[in-house]
Amino acid sequence: MASEIAEQPAAARRTLDALLPEQPRLRELAAGRRRVLLVARGSSDNAAIYGRYLLEVAAGVPAGLAAPSVATHYGARLDLSDTMVISVSQSGATAEIVETQEWARACGAATVGVTNVEGSPLADAADVALVTRAGPELAVPATKSYLTQLVALAVLADALGEAPRGDALDRVPAAVEELLHTDVGAAAEALATTDRVVVSGRGLLLGTALETALKMEETCLRPVRGYSYADLRHGPISVVSEGLLAVLVGAAEGPLAEPMVDLVRDLHDRGARVLGLGGTSDFADECDLHLAGPDLPETVEPIASIVPAQLMIEQMARRLALDPDNPRGLKKVTQTDR
Amino acid sequence: MASEIAEQPAAARRTLDALLPEQPRLRELAAGRRRVLLVARGSSDNAAIYGRYLLEVAAGVPAGLAAPSVATHYGARLDLSDTMVISVSQSGATAEIVETQEWARACGAATVGVTNVEGSPLADAADVALVTRAGPELAVPATKSYLTQLVALAVLADALGEAPRGDALDRVPAAVEELLHTDVGAAAEALATTDRVVVSGRGLLLGTALETALKMEETCLRPVRGYSYADLRHGPISVVSEGLLAVLVGAAEGPLAEPMVDLVRDLHDRGARVLGLGGTSDFADECDLHLAGPDLPETVEPIASIVPAQLMIEQMARRLALDPDNPRGLKKVTQTDR
Repeated sequence: MASEIAEQPAAARRTLDALLPEQPRLRELAAGRRRVLLVARGSSDNAAIYGRYLLEVAAGVPAGLAAPSVATHYGARLDLSDTMVISVSQSGATAEIVETQEWARACGAATVGVTNVEGSPLADAADVALVTRAGPELAVPATKSYLTQLVALAVLADALGEAPRGDALDRVPAAVEELLHTDVGAAAEALATTDRVVVSGRGLLLGTALETALKMEETCLRPVRGYSYADLRHGPISVVSEGLLAVLVGAAEGPLAEPMVDLVRDLHDRGARVLGLGGTSDFADECDLHLAGPDLPETVEPIASIVPAQLMIEQMARRLALDPDNPRGLKKVTQTDR
Repeated sequence: MASEIAEQPAAARRTLDALLPEQPRLRELAAGRRRVLLVARGSSDNAAIYGRYLLEVAAGVPAGLAAPSVATHYGARLDLSDTMVISVSQSGATAEIVETQEWARACGAATVGVTNVEGSPLADAADVALVTRAGPELAVPATKSYLTQLVALAVLADALGEAPRGDALDRVPAAVEELLHTDVGAAAEALATTDRVVVSGRGLLLGTALETALKMEETCLRPVRGYSYADLRHGPISVVSEGLLAVLVGAAEGPLAEPMVDLVRDLHDRGARVLGLGGTSDFADECDLHLAGPDLPETVEPIASIVPAQLMIEQMARRLALDPDNPRGLKKVTQTDR
């Protein structure tokens, strides 16, 4: 896991170089389509959540997440002739995702497969395959495959938007490189010595928060809950109390940056400690512990902001005497059922 | 909370009687619209998740859930002229939901407001208001307002589908009545004496599982995680171990009924105990504890299947010496921020 985290600047660069030339084909495929539907599970689903916000906020394209069982189990017949379906799977071999992509095509959708494996069933069956260049990922917890999925989705949103801004994307590999030097010792120690942890984020950074929670759960075998900021406020905040450590992923700019500071204060009032990732300087000041995020515009910030979280989780696992490469109970290619 | 749970058969009947006559207006409003976007938070969001599956599976209408911050904070300009937007809020006064409905209209959407309060801002601004007839809800945890929201969404899906089946809806009030007599003592005792609980469900019953988790968290102040069956399998299952109590909400029929039995076995292998709600007889046999669900078709089953969960949570709160009507830390009308 540590070596794969370190490969991410190069993986992001290779993926950008490979996929930016696909933008004209993506624009052509999208012609006449009015919306995007994303299909994914697990870490790829967290990448898809970023893709959804980015498409709506930055590209102005209505986007949403598919419920795969609607395809695989209920076999619903929907008219998707106005839709571009983006299926995201590291292996390109998760049966449920491959099957949902087939179903989408049969319903009339244009299909894009985002996968790390050239020649995989997902890539082969898609109208356009966006093959990420993470290289083989051996550790069970996804790191570089997740980060390059975000790159692919940003390339896609950039292609579908009216005002492509590829220059922000070009700054991503260097920002990822810089974050590799983050000192995560105190954060890993705080996490390893706390048994009640929640993670929250919002908007473009919601996916980062959910991926942080999932990764901590998979890698450190601790129950960790990921919430959107709003979902946390609508109920679960009632169980926040003394002894809880809240990990908050903040945006450095944009309309959601400021409200995150209020959440820190509210969590403090309820007795929780707060570990902040990224965010504004006000946010950093309010947090009990803080790791800096990347210096990037909010639209591409989430691609790099997962990096300090990955580093801290890897180190947390070692402090718990766990092997971060091979957590108990998970396989690399997860099949949902049967 | 107990008295409001008991009012649900009458509330469901009143709501059906009031809203079934709105079906022609709903069909008219939907003419030329190709998809549905649902807007909600908290318990209403769990109702919306049911609505989404029902619209896709039973009515054949592509449906999805909005991310309200795309409207309220990012102010994205999306073309929603092909979309019917359904906003769900008990009070009809949650600023974020009202604002998102206004945004949707400005983006060209037809709007339907589902609320329990006639004359509320949400009802007044909607093209069609579906006002549920739960009556005033005084307990903070939503019960009858949630159940009648499901009724309203089923009436809507029934109106938009090509083959309305209002007869199944007519059987709901009696099924709800029957479930009020469920003996939940053993289930409440098991929950009150366990501090690690997860809840899972799938497809049409996913909303029921998430609502069960949220209600337990709000009412009993215990951290309880709700997962879709697939999300549980893709990661969090790695933290299932001895001492965990898993609450599984099963379907009595349909394509997702059988896989739930496999999940019980898998959870048992990892040392968890399973409390089942509803499902097939095979499922009931595998569970350590079991509460029967309603005798209804899968499409309307979720309207009634929340009832045993409500009863067991109300009793669980009393065993924990909590007041189920006024949990700590929550207000009746939740504002996400500012």
